[in-house]
Amino acid sequence: MMNEEELRKIIRRIVKEEMEPGIPVAVSNHHVHLTEADYKTLFPHEEIAPRKWLTQPKEYAAKQVVTIVGPTGNEIPHVRVMGPCRKHSQVEIARSDARQLGITVPTRLSGELEGTPSIKVKTDDGEITVQGVIAAKRHIHMSDKDAERFGVKYGETVEVAIETDGRRTIYDDVIARPNPNFVLEMHIDVDEANAACVGPDTIGHIVPKDKRV
Amino acid sequence: MMNEEELRKIIRRIVKEEMEPGIPVAVSNHHVHLTEADYKTLFPHEEIAPRKWLTQPKEYAAKQVVTIVGPTGNEIPHVRVMGPCRKHSQVEIARSDARQLGITVPTRLSGELEGTPSIKVKTDDGEITVQGVIAAKRHIHMSDKDAERFGVKYGETVEVAIETDGRRTIYDDVIARPNPNFVLEMHIDVDEANAACVGPDTIGHIVPKDKRV
Repeated sequence: MMNEEELRKIIRRIVKEEMEPGIPVAVSNHHVHLTEADYKTLFPHEEIAPRKWLTQPKEYAAKQVVTIVGPTGNEIPHVRVMGPCRKHSQVEIARSDARQLGITVPTRLSGELEGTPSIKVKTDDGEITVQGVIAAKRHIHMSDKDAERFGVKYGETVEVAIETDGRRTIYDDVIARPNPNFVLEMHIDVDEANAACVGPDTIGHIVPKDKRV
Repeated sequence: MMNEEELRKIIRRIVKEEMEPGIPVAVSNHHVHLTEADYKTLFPHEEIAPRKWLTQPKEYAAKQVVTIVGPTGNEIPHVRVMGPCRKHSQVEIARSDARQLGITVPTRLSGELEGTPSIKVKTDDGEITVQGVIAAKRHIHMSDKDAERFGVKYGETVEVAIETDGRRTIYDDVIARPNPNFVLEMHIDVDEANAACVGPDTIGHIVPKDKRV
């Protein structure tokens, strides 16, 4: 069934995977970051508490969840709160969520909230409006050593090839985010994971500059 | 704000778009194809009727819609029936739909249904089980002349670069499907559209073989 071209393609991929350091791909579901004040409005009776520690140090998915409410009343329940609290509240959703909520959402890096839309966030105990709804721009957390190894600088755009069976995808517009404390991990949202058929053990490879399309 | 590298990148893209024939990108929402017999079970009182003609000749989205029911009772309502009727019934959903229904779904070309899962499809008047649930493998409908122009053969895999603002994506594993009657159009599903931020006027470009990663 397999011709030489297909065989060569598979061998090339395996060789590349063995020779280049792979990047674990992590999938972010919709979630919210809250300020201390917004947290207290939504959860007046309980402290924020870690449910699951993430790969990046000191970051966690909290036990607490909220409901996001779109302008026409469409709701997404059980949206996870991330901890610890931040300086600005922010709602990160996929484009598929945005459609369900009846809003349009810009693609932004975390924290780049200028001009982003607002949305209602509620719990049984409180309600706030968060100005800062974004679809996360795909990015790679990495240590400074990783950045040196890959030859990339903070904020640089790279292409990442994701090798999956039947839905191989090269994501461009991926932002490199080196930091002394970061652990190597590419972050994409659920739409991007579905489009590339990403599973729990999927890895990506930065496309060398001379091979970029 | 813009440095030379960014400017060069933009100019290269524009030059490429002007020089190469672009491929319109069409987004397929979940839908079903039905046999005459299955159609009659679901709609005993009405003939199938076109609601909107598609780009490919004689193909249409029908007025009729069905509900898909997952194994645990999770439903997706208002799933469009496509016409005319076919030799085999088939349910095409996105991976995000599969998660909502509580099933896993293989990535397949239309009609390649061996070993694919089954699902319940119902209307107010009837109910059937369709063996043939797939996530559509991305593909390009094209005329024989287009195929000659692109230098591709039937069934060949190509990479297609989709130029969008902030989510530029190169989809590999795209199958070329030349046919004398086809009109040039790339088909992707809603997950793939969301991941690449595809809009109504988005076009793709086949990546030349010597530039493939």
